[in-house]
Amino acid sequence: MAIVAVGSIAFDSVASTAGKRERILGGSLTHFSNAASLKSKPRLVGVVGEDFGDMEMDFLKKKSSSVEGVEMLKGEKSFFWKGHYTENFDSAVTEITELNAFAKFNPVVPESYKTDDYILFLANISPDIQTRVAKQCPNSKLKMLDTMNYWIESTPDDLQTAFANVDGIIINEGEAELLTGEKNLIIAAKKLFLPHFKLIILKKGSNGVMVFGKNYIVSLPAFPLTEIIDPTGAGDSFAGAFLSYIDAVGDYDLSQETVKQAAVYATIVASHAVQGFGVEGIDGITTDDVEKRIDEFRKIASFE
Amino acid sequence: MAIVAVGSIAFDSVASTAGKRERILGGSLTHFSNAASLKSKPRLVGVVGEDFGDMEMDFLKKKSSSVEGVEMLKGEKSFFWKGHYTENFDSAVTEITELNAFAKFNPVVPESYKTDDYILFLANISPDIQTRVAKQCPNSKLKMLDTMNYWIESTPDDLQTAFANVDGIIINEGEAELLTGEKNLIIAAKKLFLPHFKLIILKKGSNGVMVFGKNYIVSLPAFPLTEIIDPTGAGDSFAGAFLSYIDAVGDYDLSQETVKQAAVYATIVASHAVQGFGVEGIDGITTDDVEKRIDEFRKIASFE
Repeated sequence: MAIVAVGSIAFDSVASTAGKRERILGGSLTHFSNAASLKSKPRLVGVVGEDFGDMEMDFLKKKSSSVEGVEMLKGEKSFFWKGHYTENFDSAVTEITELNAFAKFNPVVPESYKTDDYILFLANISPDIQTRVAKQCPNSKLKMLDTMNYWIESTPDDLQTAFANVDGIIINEGEAELLTGEKNLIIAAKKLFLPHFKLIILKKGSNGVMVFGKNYIVSLPAFPLTEIIDPTGAGDSFAGAFLSYIDAVGDYDLSQETVKQAAVYATIVASHAVQGFGVEGIDGITTDDVEKRIDEFRKIASFE
Repeated sequence: MAIVAVGSIAFDSVASTAGKRERILGGSLTHFSNAASLKSKPRLVGVVGEDFGDMEMDFLKKKSSSVEGVEMLKGEKSFFWKGHYTENFDSAVTEITELNAFAKFNPVVPESYKTDDYILFLANISPDIQTRVAKQCPNSKLKMLDTMNYWIESTPDDLQTAFANVDGIIINEGEAELLTGEKNLIIAAKKLFLPHFKLIILKKGSNGVMVFGKNYIVSLPAFPLTEIIDPTGAGDSFAGAFLSYIDAVGDYDLSQETVKQAAVYATIVASHAVQGFGVEGIDGITTDDVEKRIDEFRKIASFE
């Protein structure tokens, strides 16, 4: 059992009411691995520039079981994002996006990654690339993709093709509404649930998460937090924690009970993610910290 | 053990994407009693006009243990509201509000209502009246009030006085933000939680509910529904079901476990409320129907 994850590796400059950080390690693949590694260290596929240092690469190595698929492009810089969060963390305002090496990302999943049963996670990239990677992995037991408003609006046909090549999607409520025109998330999920889908994960931020299986729904509130430091990567952390749970259990049939436990686990890991800048929120915690917060969450949200 | 409830009794003309109804029985007291009566028939305090018929009064009698406190004002009509819901039930648009008899509402809680241990529920009325009624009931074991934007904006000082005379409040997330300026509902609830409070209930519509006790939080998602008919009175139905559960259990100390079970029960009763026009959604169901849906909710939202 294993996870193969494809996504961005970046430097982020972030500011929020809690402070700011310059050029810290970020990117969807980084956040995904950081969260997944508590249960299942993924095999990474990504691209970086020459400015990507040993310290950063060591972090990725620590959080993965292989970085064979991480390419360093000569003469290029790494993906760079600069932005800030408005008060209350209502929205992220982008100040600078420099794709750099990521603009030339042409992911190839190493053959060594395709052994055993494995889950494929396609972080938010162009749907065209997502389709190509999905086709490289016909034997994957579960293929999930994340996407965003930009692709929904600019390349809707490519996105439908990508949907046709995966087993499920992980999106947020705004993206679900944009895709379907529906504000009722349950109706939206029904419209989005293609016949071959196994799962749709709808993230609702501070309002929790809904997961739709073939014939069930799982719905959970968020873990209540009063102090948020940096929500960057919370969604990828949720995805990483969720899929690592599924992978660790090996329940590729995705029973309601497994999916619910995975969603509880991911809710708690993601709640840690937002309590530090960049990867710090999760990097410092242990499985014990997660278990303790799950116990607290049980008192808050689970019932007889 | 008993509940004393004070609020409006009205005729509503309602339209939604599901259809429309003219002059159906409504009002906060009506919806509260309709829901509460499944577990604990409340003692009612309200006012109606001469147009209030036997059929309507029989409904209130059926859903209560006493209507001694319901006054019929000669020469007056009953409270009348006409409105419609926008698509997706995002907002209620008021077309007509005629207070009629309700404008002269001067509630007096009958002495016969003040026997046994009892809970006092003050539905959304002027905070001035809420304070007067709370003072009539010094021996109530638990006094809860509901309010709305209008009173928060127009009589904030009176509202604070009312807060000082009750043990807790039931409001929605918009009202919590309006009262505190805080979008983070947990911070808002902490700001609102007066030293003498026992409970704050924050309703979030399709995103569920959070309940804050002296040293705990309960948070639940909503029961997932694809078909809503009429959300009028959903909040009062939640309050009625919640308080009837507390009353039936008799746990006036409000342990986290009791409050959580009460919130689960009220979530399910309120989910039935919105599936019919006016009182129809709940009027037709049995305790068995509620239990069955709680079982379903457990699979969706409760975890090990």
